[in-house]
Amino acid sequence: MTVTNPDESRIRALIADRASAVRAKDPDGALAPYAREVVVYDLAPPLQHVGGEARDRDGIAAWFATWEGPLGYEVGDLAVTVRDDIAFAHGFLRIHGTKTSGARDDVWVRQTICLAHIDGAWRIVHEHLSVPFYMDGSYRAAVDLTP
Amino acid sequence: MTVTNPDESRIRALIADRASAVRAKDPDGALAPYAREVVVYDLAPPLQHVGGEARDRDGIAAWFATWEGPLGYEVGDLAVTVRDDIAFAHGFLRIHGTKTSGARDDVWVRQTICLAHIDGAWRIVHEHLSVPFYMDGSYRAAVDLTP
Repeated sequence: MTVTNPDESRIRALIADRASAVRAKDPDGALAPYAREVVVYDLAPPLQHVGGEARDRDGIAAWFATWEGPLGYEVGDLAVTVRDDIAFAHGFLRIHGTKTSGARDDVWVRQTICLAHIDGAWRIVHEHLSVPFYMDGSYRAAVDLTP
Repeated sequence: MTVTNPDESRIRALIADRASAVRAKDPDGALAPYAREVVVYDLAPPLQHVGGEARDRDGIAAWFATWEGPLGYEVGDLAVTVRDDIAFAHGFLRIHGTKTSGARDDVWVRQTICLAHIDGAWRIVHEHLSVPFYMDGSYRAAVDLTP
């Protein structure tokens, strides 16, 4: 018998719902799980976005607009640890589709999410997304790796 | 009056002691806080290192040997959240010094650390280190940013 912690199920649902919102290019759905004071380490500079700057609806809408047609955004291999009113999760994220430039992107990203139960709901208080980079002197982002 | 959670103090000490071990180029001290089944998302490929692969003493000793003289490794702006027997922390890390090639490196890195209290001690169960990359078509790692 598998005993699943109900909070773990809620957190997995939150992460899955948000991935659905990103695939639907829905800015409000994509930002909904962020806590007011969230700290985000994103794929693009700067080093961090804090609070309202991380919940920038226009910014995420502009990013969605760089994709032509469907945006693939799938969470894989997610490990979730919950205790009391905090939790953390990590795994991979595959982001793929065709940019308006015609370029075909297909990138595997590492994702770490830290959560807190605030005012009756789980919220993302910290998110870290990245790819590694090649240390061969090229400093090139390793966007060609697969798990 | 500032009330500090004793577990938060222990975790801050663990992270500070480990930074000291890295500065001293001590592989055992640098790897000591890792849990057996740690999952590491490192600066260099591959996407992840799991368990024994992440606790590779020869690998970290080889990395230390790429630095000529002192290795600067300072943790800054660390936010720590603890509840019961789990915790997470995030902040910046400055890694600087001179490589054996003569190149001078000075990079600010984003760091997320997830911990669990296992067999009487706090251990790192997940670590995520990264820099962002430029989305101007260059795919260049942003190693020139400061907080």
